[in-house]
This record gives sequence, structure tokens and C-alpha cells, in this order.
Amino acid sequence: MNYEAKLTELGLKLPNPPAVAGSYVPYVRTGNLLYLAGTISSFNGELTHTGQVGQEQTVQTAYESAKICALNTLANIKAATGSLDNVKQFVLVTGFVNAVSGFTDSPAVINGASELFGKVFGDAGKHARAAVAAAGLPKGSTVEIQVIVELKS
Amino acid sequence: MNYEAKLTELGLKLPNPPAVAGSYVPYVRTGNLLYLAGTISSFNGELTHTGQVGQEQTVQTAYESAKICALNTLANIKAATGSLDNVKQFVLVTGFVNAVSGFTDSPAVINGASELFGKVFGDAGKHARAAVAAAGLPKGSTVEIQVIVELKS
Amino acid sequence: MNYEAKLTELGLKLPNPPAVAGSYVPYVRTGNLLYLAGTISSFNGELTHTGQVGQEQTVQTAYESAKICALNTLANIKAATGSLDNVKQFVLVTGFVNAVSGFTDSPAVINGASELFGKVFGDAGKHARAAVAAAGLPKGSTVEIQVIVELKS
Repeated sequence: MNYEAKLTELGLKLPNPPAVAGSYVPYVRTGNLLYLAGTISSFNGELTHTGQVGQEQTVQTAYESAKICALNTLANIKAATGSLDNVKQFVLVTGFVNAVSGFTDSPAVINGASELFGKVFGDAGKHARAAVAAAGLPKGSTVEIQVIVELKS
Repeated sequence: MNYEAKLTELGLKLPNPPAVAGSYVPYVRTGNLLYLAGTISSFNGELTHTGQVGQEQTVQTAYESAKICALNTLANIKAATGSLDNVKQFVLVTGFVNAVSGFTDSPAVINGASELFGKVFGDAGKHARAAVAAAGLPKGSTVEIQVIVELKS
Repeated sequence: MNYEAKLTELGLKLPNPPAVAGSYVPYVRTGNLLYLAGTISSFNGELTHTGQVGQEQTVQTAYESAKICALNTLANIKAATGSLDNVKQFVLVTGFVNAVSGFTDSPAVINGASELFGKVFGDAGKHARAAVAAAGLPKGSTVEIQVIVELKS
């Protein structure tokens, strides 16, 4: 149940919470639900994966892009609540893949985020999900994810 | 109020709950809200509509694709709660249409899902909605919908 | 705290609540959350911005399109609750920009909606957000936003 410890055990290190890229905030809590802003694949301010799958990126590199998005979302959860241990349950992940028209493998890409949540949070990391290809994403990021989690009350 | 009976009366038969196509779960309940995973137009494991509107598909065939998505979402609701009769109110349907760039008729397509929910659930099937064209969808499905419903407590 | 007065002070006038463009409803309330249907840039029934950014539209004109979407969402909130003053907190804005493949500036576009919410509602207008490029939007609208707000109980 100690997700912070699990993160360390997995050798994962959270980036700083990402700077917001517009006129919004990184999270809003309503009741026990925490709505996180979309996160892209930028690590401590440096873009790690840009361009579309089917052009500059592959399913494999986009999977890595999704992992970076997930780490940024975790950084936002920690900033919002003080500790990842305040998460009760992941609820919904909406995953957008920057891809050429007709791309069919968005689930394999967004697994990069989903599997990271599963490794760190176990059952509490399991979530409903939609994964689609977008025509474009902020700053050309290869992936963007938007997440809702339930917090311990 | 007997939605299961209404489904039968309409001659509709639910598919098996769709196999998840990635590292996620078909639904998460938080409070009285049930978040369903995105569903595509696959019926008992067989894809029924693939390709983009404006190319392989038309608005009319994509409307049928959206109906299949809706049936899969109903199968997930039933698997989650035991019976469609546990639904209090549909809340939000996010509809993604796999379409060529510049496609303008996503509402007419997603009506295929919305009207099915309306026929089965009456007022309880009425929902807020966003309908957009996506650059691509999982397995090339022509439509994907993602749904939130409120359950009877 | 008087958002209706602030709207007037800013010289903004709400359009009529937009006609729904399909088989859905403009809002659903569940608990204290109000889920709004997606709104496009049509003002009192007349489309104000159509076509894609990168073709018929620019980031600047699309920013204006997002403002119109925001006004329509406010009209729906007022229709749902009687007064904008019933809003406790904006929660989530999902912004879709109708754009050519590879578009990277969706945040700058969706700021047109986000900044309007901020001006009218102050801290209560701050929201989490995802902003992506869509392959197409209803009626060719340049922007569509979908919003969740928390109401005063």
C-alpha cells in the first residue's frame, strides 16, 4: 500500500510537476475525485518525444512517451495531495496519441502509461480507459494523457 | 423502468462483455458513478466496422458502428452491476468517429449510440455528449464511445 | 462572487442556449457535478468560425472561436441552474481544436475559453484541462469544448 516506496523500488523518479502550458491549473479536487490536467512527454521541462507515430515515432517509442506522461501525472498527484499514498483508486485515463490519419494501435501506446500505474499502484492503479489518435498534441508531444483518480477521504 | 425487459422488447441482444484491448479494466465505480472504458464496434470478438468515414465507411454505416459500441457498453454495465436496471441516469457520452480530416458529421454518427440509449432507458438514457472526429481508433474501429453513468445507490 | 454582474461588467452577453445538434441533452447533473454537453462556435444559431486551423483559420481566430464555445457553455450552465452564481468551481475543460494533422498549438487556442472562465469566475473559474487537435468537429466548427463544473450544493 506504500506507493511512494514502490516507486523507489522500481527505480522510478518523479520529475518536477510540469509547468502548465496555458490558462489552466494542474489539478482540481471535487469531493474525493481529483481531476488532473493533461500531461505531455516533457521531463523537467525538456520534451522527450515529439512528432507523430507513423512518421517521427513508432509504437515502441510512443510507449515510452506515454510513460513520461504518466510520471508527470504522478508528479501532479503528489503536488496536489502531498503523497501518492493518498490515492485510493485510479478511475479513468484518456489517452491521446499524436499519429498519422488511420493509426490503429493507440492501445499499445497508452499501455505505457497504464502499465506504469499498474506497477506502482497494483489494484488501485487499475482504471477504465479510452485511447484514440489525435490529429495533433500540445508542443508536438507524441502522447498526452488526462487522468481522474479517487483519493482516500 | 425495467430496462432489461425493454432491451428484449426491442429485439436487442447484448454481446459478451468485450475483451479489454490493453492494460486497463472495463469499468471503475467511484461513489455512484460508473466510468466505462471506451468500447469499439466489435461484436463477440469480431470487428463489425473498420476504417474511416469518408473512405471505407459512410455516415450511415458509422451510425451502425456506434450502435455496436453502445451494445458493448451496455454489456459492460451489466457485467459491472448485474443488471441494466441498476442504472439511474446516463451522464456523459464521449464519441470518437474515425474519419478523414475535416469531417463535420460526427453528431449524426454518434446518434447511433445515443438513440439506442434513449430507446432502452427513456429519460434515464438522456446524456450530455461530445462528438468529435479522431485521426484513428483502436483496431481501426470506425467508432469508439466512452460513457459515464450514475447508478442507483 | 457575483458572476452574473461580472459578466455584465466585462461587456459580455450570453447567447441563447445552443440548440442540441443530436440525440443528447445540454447538461446532466449528478450530485453536485454538472456535466455540460460539448459546445461549438455558433452564436444564436449562426456559426462564427468553421474550418481547420492551418487552413481556413489561424491560432488567433481559433482563440475567438474558443471564446464563443465558452459563452455557449455559460448559457447552458445558466439554463441548467438559473444563474451563473450557482457555480462553485470549474473542474475540467476538454478542448478540441479542428486542425490540420500535426498541429501543435491547441493550448493557445483553448486559452480563449479558459481565460474567459478566469475573467468571469476568478479562482472559481480555474480548471484542469486537456487540449488536443481533432480531425474534425461538428458542423465544421473550429473549436469544441466540453466542461464539468461543481455547483454550490
